[in-house]
Amino acid sequence: MTAPSAAHGLLICVSGPSGVGKGTIIREVLRRRPGMAHSISVTTRSPRPGEQHGVDYYFSDRESFRRMLEAGEILEHDIYCDHFYGTPLKPLQQLVAAGTDVLLDITVPGSLAVMENYPDCVTLCLLPPSLTELERRLSKRGTETAEVMQKRLAKAREEVNMASCFQYVVVNDDLAETARQILAIIDAEHCRYARLAGIEETILAR
Amino acid sequence: MTAPSAAHGLLICVSGPSGVGKGTIIREVLRRRPGMAHSISVTTRSPRPGEQHGVDYYFSDRESFRRMLEAGEILEHDIYCDHFYGTPLKPLQQLVAAGTDVLLDITVPGSLAVMENYPDCVTLCLLPPSLTELERRLSKRGTETAEVMQKRLAKAREEVNMASCFQYVVVNDDLAETARQILAIIDAEHCRYARLAGIEETILAR
Repeated sequence: MTAPSAAHGLLICVSGPSGVGKGTIIREVLRRRPGMAHSISVTTRSPRPGEQHGVDYYFSDRESFRRMLEAGEILEHDIYCDHFYGTPLKPLQQLVAAGTDVLLDITVPGSLAVMENYPDCVTLCLLPPSLTELERRLSKRGTETAEVMQKRLAKAREEVNMASCFQYVVVNDDLAETARQILAIIDAEHCRYARLAGIEETILAR
Repeated sequence: MTAPSAAHGLLICVSGPSGVGKGTIIREVLRRRPGMAHSISVTTRSPRPGEQHGVDYYFSDRESFRRMLEAGEILEHDIYCDHFYGTPLKPLQQLVAAGTDVLLDITVPGSLAVMENYPDCVTLCLLPPSLTELERRLSKRGTETAEVMQKRLAKAREEVNMASCFQYVVVNDDLAETARQILAIIDAEHCRYARLAGIEETILAR
C-alpha cells in the first residue's frame, strides 16, 4: 500500500552569495534525484548558438515579457546588460501540480521577491565556509581587476548577511554533503504537517 | 575545514497513537545513527530482574520523584499502575549540550507537555497508513477482549486526530523508509536558520 503523501511538489529557492556554488550544487542534487526539475528562466536576449527554447531559457520578446509581468506571470525578474531575465510562474505551477519538486537557482534579492509572490516556497541560503574561501572561489572565476574583485566581495559580504531571511542555511563546504543536506531539507518539508493538513482524516477513513 | 554547525543537539519527540510502532522505529533510527541517544525515563516502580539503573530506567523512590517534579526537573510525567513515569530533564540537557541528538519515545499527551516545557524540541507524529492497519497492529499485541480492543482503537483514533499539533507527520508504512524520513527531518532541523542564528558573523570573521 502506498503511504499518503503530499500530492503537490515543492518550490525550493537555492540562493546565496555570488560565488558560493549554487549552479554546481543544483546540478548535483538533480543528478542524485532525477525526478526533480529546475526552473527555466525567461529572457528577452537572443538565443546563443546551441541554446534551445524551453531547455536553456524560454526566449521572449520585450513586449511579451512586459505582458507576462503585468499579468503576474513572472515570480521575480531582473535586468542584466539591457535584457530582462525572469522566473515564469506557469511552467512552475504545472510541475508542482504534477507533484514534481522544482529547484530555483536564484540571487538573494530574487529569493526575497519569490517569498512574497510564492509564500509556500522553501528558502535555502548556501553559505561559504569562510569569507576567505568565498574570495578564493570568486577569484577563480575570471580575470577581474582588484577593484572589481573588491566590489564583488563587498556585495557577497552583504549577501551572506542576508542569511537570516532564509528558512534554511547550508554551508557549502563539500559538494556531496551539501547535496545530501538539501535533499534532507526537501524530504523533511514534505513531512511538515502544514503541507499534509487533513491527512489524519484520510487515514481514519481507510 | 569543518563546516560551522549547531553546537547543540536536538530533542526529537517521536509520538503517535498506541500501536503505530514508535519503539521499533526509534530502535531502527538509533541503529542507523549510533551517535544519537534516546531519553531514559525515571520511574518509581521497582527494577525487574535484569533491568539496570540508567540503562532501562532511572529508578527512584516516590519522595525523590516528587522533589524532581517540584523542582521542574521532569519534562512530562504520567501515572501507570500506581507508579510514576517521567522524562528527566537533566540527563537530556547534558546530552543536548554535548551536541547529541536525543529521541524521545512519547505518548501524544506527553508530547504536548514537552512542547510546553521545551519549546525548542522537534515534534513528530507517526501515523499508521490506515485505521484498518492500526487495528491489525494493535490486535497483534495481546489477547485483549473485543471490548478492550474497541476502547484502545477509539483512543488511537483520537490520537491520530491530534496530528495537527505536531510539526511533522510521518506515515509508518515501511520501517526503512520511515527511519530515513525521520533522519531527514533531524538533518533538516539542524539547517534551520533559527538554530544557526549568528552563523553569518562567524563566517564573515574567517
